[in-house]
Amino acid sequence: MAQKPSIPKGTRDFNPEQVARRNYIFNTIKQSFETFGFQPIETPSFENSETLMGKYGDEGDRLIFKILNSGDFLSKVENGIYESKDSQKITPKISEKALRYDLTVPFARYVVQHQNEIEFPFKRYQIQPVWRADRPQKGRFREFYQCDADVVGSNSLWQEVEFIQLYDTVFTALKLEGVIIKINNRKVLSGIAEVIGAQDKLIDFTIALDKLDKIGEEKVKEEMLGKGISEDGIAKLRPLFSLSGSFESQIESLKTILSSSKEGKQGIEELEFVSKAIKDLGLQTAKLQLDVTLARGLNYYTGAIFEVAAPEGVDMGSIGGGGRYDDLTGIFGLKDVSGIGISFGLDRIYLVLEELDLFPETVMNNIEVLFINFGEREALYSLKAIKRLRQKDIAAELYPDDAKMKKQMNYANKRNIPFVVLVGEKELNSQVFTLKNMKSGEQFELSLDQLISYLK
Amino acid sequence: MAQKPSIPKGTRDFNPEQVARRNYIFNTIKQSFETFGFQPIETPSFENSETLMGKYGDEGDRLIFKILNSGDFLSKVENGIYESKDSQKITPKISEKALRYDLTVPFARYVVQHQNEIEFPFKRYQIQPVWRADRPQKGRFREFYQCDADVVGSNSLWQEVEFIQLYDTVFTALKLEGVIIKINNRKVLSGIAEVIGAQDKLIDFTIALDKLDKIGEEKVKEEMLGKGISEDGIAKLRPLFSLSGSFESQIESLKTILSSSKEGKQGIEELEFVSKAIKDLGLQTAKLQLDVTLARGLNYYTGAIFEVAAPEGVDMGSIGGGGRYDDLTGIFGLKDVSGIGISFGLDRIYLVLEELDLFPETVMNNIEVLFINFGEREALYSLKAIKRLRQKDIAAELYPDDAKMKKQMNYANKRNIPFVVLVGEKELNSQVFTLKNMKSGEQFELSLDQLISYLK
Repeated sequence: MAQKPSIPKGTRDFNPEQVARRNYIFNTIKQSFETFGFQPIETPSFENSETLMGKYGDEGDRLIFKILNSGDFLSKVENGIYESKDSQKITPKISEKALRYDLTVPFARYVVQHQNEIEFPFKRYQIQPVWRADRPQKGRFREFYQCDADVVGSNSLWQEVEFIQLYDTVFTALKLEGVIIKINNRKVLSGIAEVIGAQDKLIDFTIALDKLDKIGEEKVKEEMLGKGISEDGIAKLRPLFSLSGSFESQIESLKTILSSSKEGKQGIEELEFVSKAIKDLGLQTAKLQLDVTLARGLNYYTGAIFEVAAPEGVDMGSIGGGGRYDDLTGIFGLKDVSGIGISFGLDRIYLVLEELDLFPETVMNNIEVLFINFGEREALYSLKAIKRLRQKDIAAELYPDDAKMKKQMNYANKRNIPFVVLVGEKELNSQVFTLKNMKSGEQFELSLDQLISYLK
Repeated sequence: MAQKPSIPKGTRDFNPEQVARRNYIFNTIKQSFETFGFQPIETPSFENSETLMGKYGDEGDRLIFKILNSGDFLSKVENGIYESKDSQKITPKISEKALRYDLTVPFARYVVQHQNEIEFPFKRYQIQPVWRADRPQKGRFREFYQCDADVVGSNSLWQEVEFIQLYDTVFTALKLEGVIIKINNRKVLSGIAEVIGAQDKLIDFTIALDKLDKIGEEKVKEEMLGKGISEDGIAKLRPLFSLSGSFESQIESLKTILSSSKEGKQGIEELEFVSKAIKDLGLQTAKLQLDVTLARGLNYYTGAIFEVAAPEGVDMGSIGGGGRYDDLTGIFGLKDVSGIGISFGLDRIYLVLEELDLFPETVMNNIEVLFINFGEREALYSLKAIKRLRQKDIAAELYPDDAKMKKQMNYANKRNIPFVVLVGEKELNSQVFTLKNMKSGEQFELSLDQLISYLK
């Protein structure tokens, strides 16, 4: 019996138009990456489980897709363990490989494994799918692409400046004007935690602070209290909640708040360096904003933290993010390699461009002309012309069967093909082609050379 | 303790040069696909297991990578089955998804699932990785890309003609001249089996015949005898073993051999149609050859069978193949959709281009110019110039740290960057740039506009 075809939940088929639109975004990002000096690498879709497990926290470990060993995989499971019927215990015995969960850990693994072939600083980009066994929901998939650019082997702050320029360049090229690049610095967050006496609660503190936008000042304070941060400490935060105004004026407030924290002051210095350079260099269409509540995966970042928001008026979470991490490759045994990287959220960028109608009309690589098929002799004559057209990079095809004219014209219409060529007895005898404009309905009789130059 | 990083056997990391070379092949193929009117689709990396299982024979089923269900996957296994500890029985209970094994079955699934959105004939191409749990060996990987173009919904023989033209176009564009496109027809093979009285042994017969090149006439006959094909029947094959000469003269011999088989004669007619059309249209650099021993996955193909061999003198298995199949979508419930498709063997094409030194030198997207970093003021001045260069699509970067000059020049050399720009006190004061050609060692002092036009 025939199966009713379907695909696993959280995955997608992409039709030709969707592929073309996705490639438009990928190609724009790639081209910017390359003018900025980033080079592409690719890593395998699956890694050894030990490369991935334990790198994303318990939640991450659960969301990693594991691949079943081949052959009689159960024969390697000791009876004692087998009898427990404990999925968690048995998993490592029957699965040695797992699908990539992100591009960052495989990149760290790549850098360590190939360290002798790499010139540092190493600027790489990587655009590949990743897989997560997350509960699918609107805009969240089990298979999706990540587009990452990272530099490892340099702790120069010019990299921060470059990445902001890169975001500006990509979104300007995509005609998505007015995106907001938010920046923060882990050292500023550490400084604040120090000042309010909550160093040991830095993560709880930043998780709460990060929610300021969503739940408001009162709820954030409640959460902090609940996590054991003192009333006194929270009181010192008051100026923080009302931080607003220009980059510079916020920096000035921070300087007051953090005057007693060495680390905090260092963070401020870094932010000032970046902000000053960006002011000098200018941004094409993006805006740079300081956002002291920005935390993103904090146990990971050690310096700058970035996040990009869609232009005002578009309701869509972050469309990009990143930051500096000081010891990514340490987990694989290569110490003291500072890195910084950013990533672009393809699926969300796609939705924003769709909502704002920013995809170019020409993004779909459609054929320019369809030759109507009137029979064997005409078809052969047509294919000779089609061959010449294709050599001039004009996409053309012959309707494969000498079906009814109406059916063939219908096909041209449905596929939005702008021109058809009609070759009957008459055209064949006088070695010409009748070209019909499908929009205007106009028809011309042309020689092959005229046809080529008309369509070019 | 730090882990020693490695990747699963049969998988590969690709460094920037390899990615660039692979993309050169992909892009050349894509461009040809599109001028021929093919449109891209993409399907998920994993499918529901029932979509894939049973479609590739028992061997195929074993080579499919299965994905372990998430969560407490063992809780769903009944105790009776669990106690058997039988890997094969338990697999479907703990795994519902599997990695794509080829692009053809997912394509068939796609066509059936989306039949109402598709205009037939549907010309699609697909370039995505597939996974097979095969024993890795030289040139055989567990993750590799397939590049397929197929048309479904037309049984016109012009498609066969088009696909031969497409092969010729792609390999000509890759400068790989002289590839041999071998063609055969399943109906000719059926006719021969009929004539020698071995209809019921068609598969055994063609598997043996297919080995003629490798093991020679005597061993092929032995194998056929062993499979129960009569001495008498094999004797009738004598002219077949010595078939040689031009396409036309081989066709004449086949006509004699197959005079009593209706199906065989139909196959000959089809071959003649295609051969005549290709003769009229001409091929740019490829050669078309009839190869009656060509069988390839026979239970699949119903008409034309294609295989492409590298130019003479290059020892490499087939670099492409395909054929016509009459009922691919039937397995998913859509009957009577004839299809034909071809595929390109990326990894082997890569090896051939490498062996013959056919990769263009410019394939690697390297940066054009590195700005040496002499300190903060100079760096900022440099970044302003770099921003202008990038806007003109000139790939440029600043060395991120004001490291020793020697270290920076070393980096430029190792990365094969053709030019460096030196900006010191002097250049800064007179608003110029010193450009150094890394090959010749020559140096010029240029204004920014001059620098841009020089590098463009």
